[in-house]
Amino acid sequence: MTYTRKNNWLGTFVLGLVLLVCQNGIAQGHPRLVLTQKGVKEIRSKLGTVPLFDASVAEVKKEVDAEILHGIEVPIPKDFSGGYTHERHKKNWLIIQKAGVLYQILGDKKYAVYVKDMLMAYTKLYPTLPLHPQERSYARGKLFWQALNDSNWLVYVSQAYDCVYDFIGAKDRAIIEKELFKPYADFISIGSPQFFNRVHNHSTWGNVAVGMIALVMDDNELLDRALHGLKEDTLPVGMKDNDGGLIKKPGQKTGFLANVDEPFSPDGYYNEGPYYQRYAMYPFMVFAEALQNTKPELKIFEYKNGILNKSIYALLNLTNSAGEFFPLNDGQKGMSYYSRELVSAVDIAYLYDGRDPSLLSIAEKQGRVQLDNSGMAVALGIKNKLTKPFIKKSIDLSDGSDGQEGGVAIIRNKIKDNELTLVMKYAAQGSSHGHFDKLSFSYYQNSDEILQDYGLARFVNIEQKGGGNYLKENATWAKQTIAHNTIIQNETSHFKGDFEIGNLYASKKYLYDVYNPKVQIISAIEDNAYPGTHMQRSMVLWDLEGYEKPLLLDIFQVDSKTANQYDLPFNYLGQMMTANFKYESPKTLEPLGTAFGYQHLWKEGFGVAAEANTKFSWLYDGSFYTMTSATSAGDELILARLGANDPNFNLRRDASVIIRKKNIKKTTFVNVIESHGSYSPVTENAVNAFSAIANVEKAYEDEKYVAVAIKNTNGSVGLFILATEDNSTTAQHTLTVKDQTYSWVGAHYSTLIK
Amino acid sequence: MTYTRKNNWLGTFVLGLVLLVCQNGIAQGHPRLVLTQKGVKEIRSKLGTVPLFDASVAEVKKEVDAEILHGIEVPIPKDFSGGYTHERHKKNWLIIQKAGVLYQILGDKKYAVYVKDMLMAYTKLYPTLPLHPQERSYARGKLFWQALNDSNWLVYVSQAYDCVYDFIGAKDRAIIEKELFKPYADFISIGSPQFFNRVHNHSTWGNVAVGMIALVMDDNELLDRALHGLKEDTLPVGMKDNDGGLIKKPGQKTGFLANVDEPFSPDGYYNEGPYYQRYAMYPFMVFAEALQNTKPELKIFEYKNGILNKSIYALLNLTNSAGEFFPLNDGQKGMSYYSRELVSAVDIAYLYDGRDPSLLSIAEKQGRVQLDNSGMAVALGIKNKLTKPFIKKSIDLSDGSDGQEGGVAIIRNKIKDNELTLVMKYAAQGSSHGHFDKLSFSYYQNSDEILQDYGLARFVNIEQKGGGNYLKENATWAKQTIAHNTIIQNETSHFKGDFEIGNLYASKKYLYDVYNPKVQIISAIEDNAYPGTHMQRSMVLWDLEGYEKPLLLDIFQVDSKTANQYDLPFNYLGQMMTANFKYESPKTLEPLGTAFGYQHLWKEGFGVAAEANTKFSWLYDGSFYTMTSATSAGDELILARLGANDPNFNLRRDASVIIRKKNIKKTTFVNVIESHGSYSPVTENAVNAFSAIANVEKAYEDEKYVAVAIKNTNGSVGLFILATEDNSTTAQHTLTVKDQTYSWVGAHYSTLIK
Repeated sequence: MTYTRKNNWLGTFVLGLVLLVCQNGIAQGHPRLVLTQKGVKEIRSKLGTVPLFDASVAEVKKEVDAEILHGIEVPIPKDFSGGYTHERHKKNWLIIQKAGVLYQILGDKKYAVYVKDMLMAYTKLYPTLPLHPQERSYARGKLFWQALNDSNWLVYVSQAYDCVYDFIGAKDRAIIEKELFKPYADFISIGSPQFFNRVHNHSTWGNVAVGMIALVMDDNELLDRALHGLKEDTLPVGMKDNDGGLIKKPGQKTGFLANVDEPFSPDGYYNEGPYYQRYAMYPFMVFAEALQNTKPELKIFEYKNGILNKSIYALLNLTNSAGEFFPLNDGQKGMSYYSRELVSAVDIAYLYDGRDPSLLSIAEKQGRVQLDNSGMAVALGIKNKLTKPFIKKSIDLSDGSDGQEGGVAIIRNKIKDNELTLVMKYAAQGSSHGHFDKLSFSYYQNSDEILQDYGLARFVNIEQKGGGNYLKENATWAKQTIAHNTIIQNETSHFKGDFEIGNLYASKKYLYDVYNPKVQIISAIEDNAYPGTHMQRSMVLWDLEGYEKPLLLDIFQVDSKTANQYDLPFNYLGQMMTANFKYESPKTLEPLGTAFGYQHLWKEGFGVAAEANTKFSWLYDGSFYTMTSATSAGDELILARLGANDPNFNLRRDASVIIRKKNIKKTTFVNVIESHGSYSPVTENAVNAFSAIANVEKAYEDEKYVAVAIKNTNGSVGLFILATEDNSTTAQHTLTVKDQTYSWVGAHYSTLIK
Repeated sequence: MTYTRKNNWLGTFVLGLVLLVCQNGIAQGHPRLVLTQKGVKEIRSKLGTVPLFDASVAEVKKEVDAEILHGIEVPIPKDFSGGYTHERHKKNWLIIQKAGVLYQILGDKKYAVYVKDMLMAYTKLYPTLPLHPQERSYARGKLFWQALNDSNWLVYVSQAYDCVYDFIGAKDRAIIEKELFKPYADFISIGSPQFFNRVHNHSTWGNVAVGMIALVMDDNELLDRALHGLKEDTLPVGMKDNDGGLIKKPGQKTGFLANVDEPFSPDGYYNEGPYYQRYAMYPFMVFAEALQNTKPELKIFEYKNGILNKSIYALLNLTNSAGEFFPLNDGQKGMSYYSRELVSAVDIAYLYDGRDPSLLSIAEKQGRVQLDNSGMAVALGIKNKLTKPFIKKSIDLSDGSDGQEGGVAIIRNKIKDNELTLVMKYAAQGSSHGHFDKLSFSYYQNSDEILQDYGLARFVNIEQKGGGNYLKENATWAKQTIAHNTIIQNETSHFKGDFEIGNLYASKKYLYDVYNPKVQIISAIEDNAYPGTHMQRSMVLWDLEGYEKPLLLDIFQVDSKTANQYDLPFNYLGQMMTANFKYESPKTLEPLGTAFGYQHLWKEGFGVAAEANTKFSWLYDGSFYTMTSATSAGDELILARLGANDPNFNLRRDASVIIRKKNIKKTTFVNVIESHGSYSPVTENAVNAFSAIANVEKAYEDEKYVAVAIKNTNGSVGLFILATEDNSTTAQHTLTVKDQTYSWVGAHYSTLIK
């Protein structure tokens, strides 16, 4: 997909928006943000007749009623995330928002009283608060250790306030707004420019927090601040946050709209990766919904070609078969579209983007809806049996606000209930949460990680592990190149692990072609990770006759001006079965290296490739996997295990097999990953436990072509040829490989020779 | 439970059996073993009306039809288990049995033809076979590498032959019996006395194989051999098999009845442990069913007080909440009551033991039935909605044929959907599959292993891992004491890891009391594992006020004539969260020791207890666990990781925390394991992530009593007192602990001091 900048259109839109905000007051009554007066009437009229909505109301009611019984607690802030005061204030923001909604939907005043009482408690507390005592954050909050969480609070509490606005009465409202909401909004914006005036999921929360309360309070100045950022800040260009993320670049645009413009690609990919996209999706979507309800003339859902709704589809596609997001960049494994942010986002996208019936199948799995008109629309759709399956196909998501900064390709092959998924990342740096992993990939069988991306080194909200914050090992291991399945030159991470340098570059797509579902290809080029070194990785998910399941062919070409050592790690999960090479198994374990993540790996085994083919197989969750590699004599093979220099046991003891080629300028790694067979501890049957590959060979390579031959134990040979300098789909090629001449049209060719 | 030997009754029974076999021919027609003529009529009359039975027929039919299309393959034997010829012959025995049954039930001759053709193929092959070419087994087979698998084959194929007996005709029957079945039965009995004439799951299969074919062929001599063993063998006493298991002890009784008499305790516990009990259950039950059908006057199901059916209940109780067997001794994790052996056993137990409706709930979970009258009875029971839940309560299963050789206690506490299960093993050696793990335990939350028994070191039927056989590491690691959560003295396994010595002794029960569901206790004594050292372990699953879930209190008293080093390992699964002691984290890893399994552990951390309480916490599968230990200054704490000296990567990289007390004669380990809280990567909420225990203290100890005080962070103190020399339930005790005097009746006392 290509995206043409629509500068004129964009300029007009922004100008119009500014004028609208300046000229028009906000005239609606309350509620008006997520719930509306009209919406509430409709919801009330349907209560008791729409099962999924009623179930969601009942669930929320049970939770809120229990908290009302428990009583209001507004403790003096003290702890990091995971600690008592943090978790209590977090619970408060979640419950008060729900209580507000219940008041509107059920009309029971006890919920309004609860919201009001809690707001009064915060109104009393807030003016007394200094900065939060925990000093770790680059932008400390008052209720929480970081202004980010203060903003989370306001995004939710604004909705609660909106729901009980009329109930509270003008006198108390004046106090609450003066003592709590206005200073609160000022603190997270004017008081925290390094947090508010950037492009980052943090500032998205900050902008939306200010924008939501602005809409409730009819405060145009705050709304303008939310949409366009602070006009002035005194932040130095190049300033960084406490996780090393860049705060200000030259000419940085700010505010909510900048946070829509920049991080999203035209395909809806968010540069920080799916984990943070999920996190930011709630403020993006709920504020868009609020803007749509209060200022429909802005057509916010049409902004940047409807990017907000598009991004929901990108996010749903960035999941494995269990709905779990691929843990690209700093991503916590297990986070999925079952999260509350995605419940909200899917509901809003359904209502405001043409009621796509396939979204209903996601909502059905989620088993709950947001308690507003969008949730009602979804629940009604399900009740009326409109649901269609959400089918995840192969997709190539561009990165960069203009779609020109590489991307992430997800290539899937689903046969019956078995889905193989390649996730190949050739994106830009990914903001401060990016990892140094150009041309990396991960590989899934259904929801099993066959070859993993480590994800983040952090126990989110688990206080005993570093206050629930990023651990040191996130920088020393998780972000480093060796933690990903891609090439490391001379034991040094891409861009020397330097964010500033990495942030300047993105990889380039060479070819993405999934036209033939049996031969799906992604090929990308990276020229900047190591200056003077050209890398091209071409991966093919190839459903080739004679194999139980599709093969993953991985051709990694590297060409440097200097002789280097190249390591290609495969971070597998499961139990090693066999290796066809001899290796030493040391009596004492030593770290594999001293820096760039190598210091965290124990060298459990060390061998040298003898045969032309290196085979390595493992068993994971009842399936067998074999990697067959076309190695050269002298290639080293390292069996590594995570855990060295990890005094706090923060890292999982996961395994890796590393192919090492030394002192060479130009070389090509050719590997084939085969998924085969099954094992059950109940039947104790090992089915198809052996690789069906007899041999993998780089059959041809010159400046223009590379060819790989995969020989089956049945004698047939699969031949794949890639034109590496001409990605045209119409070019005519002729090439002789092993005395046989092949002619074809387009960048690649494949055949089965029996 | 106590069991009084009924020697007179037993003698009369055996005599009667011999007379019956000698005097009466077997007069029924065919089929007669598992199916009967009358049974087939009943089944046919109900076809199409009993959903679970019909579904099972359809499933079997689909499988057999596919194999009939595939054609008959009877290859020359060559491979180990997991290899092609092994798996092919194994598939043959499974399919031919099913085809025979389908012929009877559906009346379609194609199934009879298939069975006959395959029998003829084997009849042609068998006489040409030498011993199997793989030489590893102490009792090689002909079709398979071990006579065990030859026997498996015959147990199934006898049933197939029975089903098509009439179809085949007398002429071909004569050939088949002369060329195949008679020599086959002779080979696995007379030809393999070291296999046939022992008490072991192997010989059970051998005995039943001979017995089944005897019943089909009306061969009384073979039947007598099956029931009572070979009259003569020339085996030397003390002979061992290739896994080191004892073959012959002095005065060894043999045959099927001896295999019922000896390994089963009166409670139905099988001395080899549940994994092998499951394996042996199929021949035990199917032969019992065949005997019941052909010789009901034997009342085989009443033999030894109905031990066969009782053993099914023992086996069902030896499972976690997912139905997986506790991996005591050589047990493969994941094996469960979903196995085909348990489908058969549950069905047979239902029909022949009073149609217990709680067995139907197991059958419902299994989702299939055996295709005979027992399966029909189960399917009908389910159709008629007779199902009741199978509730697993705490149970103490004695070991030893007379119930006097220790046992296994399973103590459960289920609150809502959360079940904690303690499995405490104080049994006898467990035959050749036994581990050196006196007074060991494992601990479960639902199906999660909090503290694990490693199980076996073997990849059953996975050819690439040592031919699917026991790996060297089974002896060097899995069987060793350090692989279990119990005390190791001077880095030497119990009985020095010597089977002959271990086989002489069992631990002794001191107290099992689950009368109060809130304070459930098992206490047992071991005096022989280390001569001169007395060990008593008392474990309490204690549902104490002030804690989210019950606590596991572990009091391990050890008293030796000499000063020793005592190690108590806790083999936890999951990720370490925190430790309250300082430890060194070595820059290079070295093995913890040189023998008895210690050579397989890397020393990842090493510390010394400073505080009176040592705390260690970890996170596993979304739950937090904390161990609080009343340690003494100078106690060493070792963080260990499996994987040293494991050149073939046969071992999982699991973790252990070891408490070490050095150079001391007498000491007491007091540990409390707490399960608390939860973590979800979707909500990212860490609930109740911290231990609620402020302090654990050995509050009192003398020759007669030990008391432990557990102080809650809320200030309350749980006090537990055990009388260690008087286990009477009626004795009166008075004891002063910390200036407070307590009086009670019975062996233990507990209270909560607020």
